Parts: sequence; C-alpha cells; structure tokens
Amino acid sequence: LSRLPGIGRRSGERMAIKLVHDPVLLRDLTQALREATEELRCCSRCGAITRASEDPCRLCTDHRRDDALLCVVEDPSDIVLIEKSRGFNGRYHALMGRLSPMNGKGPADLRIEPLLRRVAEGKVTEVLLALNTDVESDATAGYLCHLLKDRKVKVTRLATGLPAGSGVMYADPLTLARAIEGRQPV
Amino acid sequence: LSRLPGIGRRSGERMAIKLVHDPVLLRDLTQALREATEELRCCSRCGAITRASEDPCRLCTDHRRDDALLCVVEDPSDIVLIEKSRGFNGRYHALMGRLSPMNGKGPADLRIEPLLRRVAEGKVTEVLLALNTDVESDATAGYLCHLLKDRKVKVTRLATGLPAGSGVMYADPLTLARAIEGRQPV
Repeated sequence: LSRLPGIGRRSGERMAIKLVHDPVLLRDLTQALREATEELRCCSRCGAITRASEDPCRLCTDHRRDDALLCVVEDPSDIVLIEKSRGFNGRYHALMGRLSPMNGKGPADLRIEPLLRRVAEGKVTEVLLALNTDVESDATAGYLCHLLKDRKVKVTRLATGLPAGSGVMYADPLTLARAIEGRQPV
Repeated sequence: LSRLPGIGRRSGERMAIKLVHDPVLLRDLTQALREATEELRCCSRCGAITRASEDPCRLCTDHRRDDALLCVVEDPSDIVLIEKSRGFNGRYHALMGRLSPMNGKGPADLRIEPLLRRVAEGKVTEVLLALNTDVESDATAGYLCHLLKDRKVKVTRLATGLPAGSGVMYADPLTLARAIEGRQPV
C-alpha cells in the first residue's frame, strides 16, 4: 500500500491494519481491484481509461467531437479533468508521462510514435499541448513541437496566467510576467 | 491594530501587548508611521505610492518606459508586484479599488475620470486591464471596456490560465476551461 502515490510507510501500515480488521472492506477492495484488472484498459487509440469492452473508448468514437483538434496530455487522468472543465470538444492523446532524463524516461517510453501516426492521418489541424507548466513538461513540449514542425499542424499550449477567481496579489512573479505576455484582447 | 487587513481581535491584542512591553519597537513604529504620513503620497498621475518630493512618481517620469501601453490596476500595491515580475515596461494607472455595489463603491469612487483623461491625451494605444479575476473585478473590467470602446485604444486583459510551474491536475475546472480557450501558438 505504501507504494501508492501520496501514501507513506506509516499510512500504509494503518491502512493494512484497518483492512485486516475489516473483512467487508477487504473483500470489497479485492473485488474492485479484480474488476479493475479485468475490465479497465487504456484506450489503444488515445490512452484514456476505458472499459475492456469499449476500445477505442467513447471519446474516440463519439461522432460529435472535433477530429481536427487533438489535445495531448501527460496522463490519462488529465483527460478526466479536462472533460470536467467542459472547455474542450476535440480528441485526446495521452503520452503516459513526460521526458524525464533524471528518471531515465526518454522519448521511446512515451506514446510519441502513435501521436505522430495520428497526426499523419491528416485530419488533425491543431495539436493542443495540454502539458504541465514545469521544467520537464516544458522540455517535453519543446521536443514535441520540434517533431511536429514539418507536419503542417498548428501547435498550441494552454494559457499560462492568473487562475480564475484569483488576483494579481496572489500571483507569483513568473506567472504574472507570463500573464502580461499572454494578455488577450477583450 | 485589529482594523489592519488580516489582523483579528486576538492578534491585535497580542501586538498591542508586545508594543507596550517593547518601547524601542513602539518608538520605531511610531516614527515609521509619522514618516509615512509626511513623506509618502499616491502619485497624482498614476496613483502609485511615491515620496512626497517625487510627484509625478519615478514610474511616470522615467523616459525609458513606453507611453503607448497603459496598465490599469485596482490597487497601488499591484504596481509593486507587476514591477517585481519584470514583465511590463509601460505606464500604470491605479483605480484605487473596483466596482463593488455591495460595499457601496460605484464608478465615482474610482479613478476612472483621470484614466479617461490620460487616454484622451492620445499617446496610449493599448490599455491592459490588470484587474483580478473574480466577479467584481470582471464587472469593473466590463465597465471600463464599455467606456473605452469609442476611444480608439486596444483593450486587453491578463491571461487566465495555469500558474507557472504547476500542472493540469492542480487546476480547477474553470481555470482549465479558460486556459484551453486562451491557448497560445507555440
């Protein structure tokens, strides 16, 4: 349990002890994990989490979504968050991570080849790199941008700026500088 | 002391007791407050905090700054933050608040007339509304935008989006939707 993200050794121990003392919880969790193993897959096309019986996933097969706009995310869970924001109606592509030389993660470990194949199909006109905004993600974005340069697609990134419902006084200097740089006409 | 922002009754009491027991601190604070009263002003042109002997302030008189770009902020302290970000090299204009009907603050309570006069001088080509991103500030931005509509200036706002060094997973749905909407070409 302590190998799960955000769980330390002590928390893992407490969870384990709780499970030993609560057979119903243990049974439910065992069953849920078995079901997850059997029934959940990453979509072979976009990488989103989907049922084994739905591959390609619903997001890939929904005809109301825009084939011309492809949103590249690091992690399948980001797709869930972007869907919740209701701000996007194109297709997705999860890289399953980002370039991280310190952790031995290079281009071959990411779903970059499948991305280039999807772009080569010709339907995509814009690739939105919805990656994080730290150093490794910036490097990944730069690398992808380089690969996509000659592919006749527009490459965009998420806006960097003030969060909604926030203020100038809560922004760090770098975010503020980027918000000024990326200012938008009203 | 408890009337200061962020200070509750209990914190105010603790500060007061500390001051009574520390005559040096009391003297220094008294002196600093007297100096502030005598020596600090809001610049008559932009509203930034300046020495009484420097009005208009250094930001208004610095010839290296761009007269064509005018950054409108709610509070003089925002000017300090934007200067720290090193992302802006135009002139400033502090409104001294924002429209807030709930607190009885209307257009006449803000430095809107001086703003329109500055724009009417003709040097300004872009007004950057560096206001906060909550409801009252949005309303203020909308009002200013309406007033500036016929003035032949471009009106822009700070980008809304992910903070620098952050990630998709930490963004709330509204910020994420705005970051997608305001996506920028790489």
